Amino acid sequence: MATENINPLNTTIGWIGTGVMGASMCLHIVKRGYKTFVFNRTREKARGLLEAGAIWVGSPKEVAERADIIFTMVGFPSDVEEVYFGEKGILKGVKPSAILIDMTTTKPSLAIEIYNAAKSKGASFIDAPVSGGDVGAKNATLSIMVGGDKDVVERVMPLLELLGKKIVYQGRAGSGQHTKMCNQIVVTGNMIGMCESLLYAYKSGLNIETVLSSISEGAASSWLLNNLTPRIVKGDFNPGFFVEHFIKDMEIALEEASRMNLCLPGLALVHQLYLATKAQGYGRLGTQALILALDSISKAGVFSKRD
Amino acid sequence: MATENINPLNTTIGWIGTGVMGASMCLHIVKRGYKTFVFNRTREKARGLLEAGAIWVGSPKEVAERADIIFTMVGFPSDVEEVYFGEKGILKGVKPSAILIDMTTTKPSLAIEIYNAAKSKGASFIDAPVSGGDVGAKNATLSIMVGGDKDVVERVMPLLELLGKKIVYQGRAGSGQHTKMCNQIVVTGNMIGMCESLLYAYKSGLNIETVLSSISEGAASSWLLNNLTPRIVKGDFNPGFFVEHFIKDMEIALEEASRMNLCLPGLALVHQLYLATKAQGYGRLGTQALILALDSISKAGVFSKRD
Repeated sequence: MATENINPLNTTIGWIGTGVMGASMCLHIVKRGYKTFVFNRTREKARGLLEAGAIWVGSPKEVAERADIIFTMVGFPSDVEEVYFGEKGILKGVKPSAILIDMTTTKPSLAIEIYNAAKSKGASFIDAPVSGGDVGAKNATLSIMVGGDKDVVERVMPLLELLGKKIVYQGRAGSGQHTKMCNQIVVTGNMIGMCESLLYAYKSGLNIETVLSSISEGAASSWLLNNLTPRIVKGDFNPGFFVEHFIKDMEIALEEASRMNLCLPGLALVHQLYLATKAQGYGRLGTQALILALDSISKAGVFSKRD
Repeated sequence: MATENINPLNTTIGWIGTGVMGASMCLHIVKRGYKTFVFNRTREKARGLLEAGAIWVGSPKEVAERADIIFTMVGFPSDVEEVYFGEKGILKGVKPSAILIDMTTTKPSLAIEIYNAAKSKGASFIDAPVSGGDVGAKNATLSIMVGGDKDVVERVMPLLELLGKKIVYQGRAGSGQHTKMCNQIVVTGNMIGMCESLLYAYKSGLNIETVLSSISEGAASSWLLNNLTPRIVKGDFNPGFFVEHFIKDMEIALEEASRMNLCLPGLALVHQLYLATKAQGYGRLGTQALILALDSISKAGVFSKRD
């Protein structure tokens, strides 16, 4: 990149990973007028972007050969490794002075590894995972947690601002991923508390809506309690966020915690219960499906998925 | 009670239990002009009420002999049993047609027992535990969760409205207590998620305030995260709610869950960790002291109580 200011006229963008999240996010950039090269494992999922003016290329390497700033938004840490370090990966084609931005939720240690590898090629890397789900991606209201070199983050800020509402610099490489882990660890606790409470409410003969009217604003109040309880009551287990992706996140957090010599018994328990949830066939349901596994443990028979 | 309408001129009140919560609550009733008979194990703690015009009597039985509507706000289920069923207990002196209201957080099964015992004396009983803490008691902003006969609840509503802001009828006898358990079960999860996340944040080198600015409004947001994190960061472990009272509540919930044949692994784990918190000498600190026990398990050495 030659200039400090990012300008659609002289900056080319690369985008790798056009799933539910990535496609919505990339579209904001394409619509803003940036020349955007895209790649995805399944080309079909990029169709909307191509119709909006994005340009298809055949591999992450080819994206890297063409773009000044490259976003990645893929699935699992192994996908991130492949996209960056693979035979046809970004680092095989990256331009010196390019900026690479991984928005996948992945391992902080992997973020640091990519940061160092990018640096050795004269390029920069920041980790910038998000929260806010598909709705946040569509409405550009994501929370973006950013780690890396601060001056690099500042240079791409105008692009991040096209994608999210709350963009916070958290510190050196990996800090964005660590912050996302903090978010997910809080969610594990809020989720088990909510699910066990709803089971207790049903079994003791209470009306859940009436219970909520007593407890939803005080010490028990949470985003999850207010947003997921109505879905659970309706038997709606459609994914806002997949069980299997949540398991991935918990496994990253547990691995990092172990590396830091940190015992997190709550996280470990919830992780185990989500393995049960997945084992029961609910891996592609929303995270609120935890209550189905908890229900089955006690054969409570009160919560079930409705079609 | 001769009339449907409660009127300070013709209704006498009894109040048993004038600790931090009870004294603040009773004062609203005294100030409203009701003739109020009070009893407390430690007379000294009722002094403010007596100065405001309340009348001291020597036992729960003597309160019952004088009052039309009697509130109890004591400590543990064993205290509630003593106050109602003891030699000098309420049921030894209760007037036919009196209304008894227990606002202590206690066992749903005990609430049902008192309900039946009161009925056999021609009196009525409702369970009406609260949430909102000492601040809610002082400002009359408590959430009051009510169980019992609906017509009885309606008759005392003007009195409950002097004490709380959100008063919700939850169903038959015991339902107020069950609802309070639902509240506490949610809190156990929110608490462990928050504490483990803060430990992770510190150990991974993040700044907690900066992390909060990323996660405090999305899927991880909760009353606890926003209200207790600032205290923890300051090393402030003063009680909003005592660890040992929270343990009592969890033990009630676990006992009731067991009776209902309901396995609640999250609640059970958090209960165990709070036993560790108490064992370490933190029983009279606020519930946020859980993080001190979690810190000690890993010898993390980041969170400590400041004087």
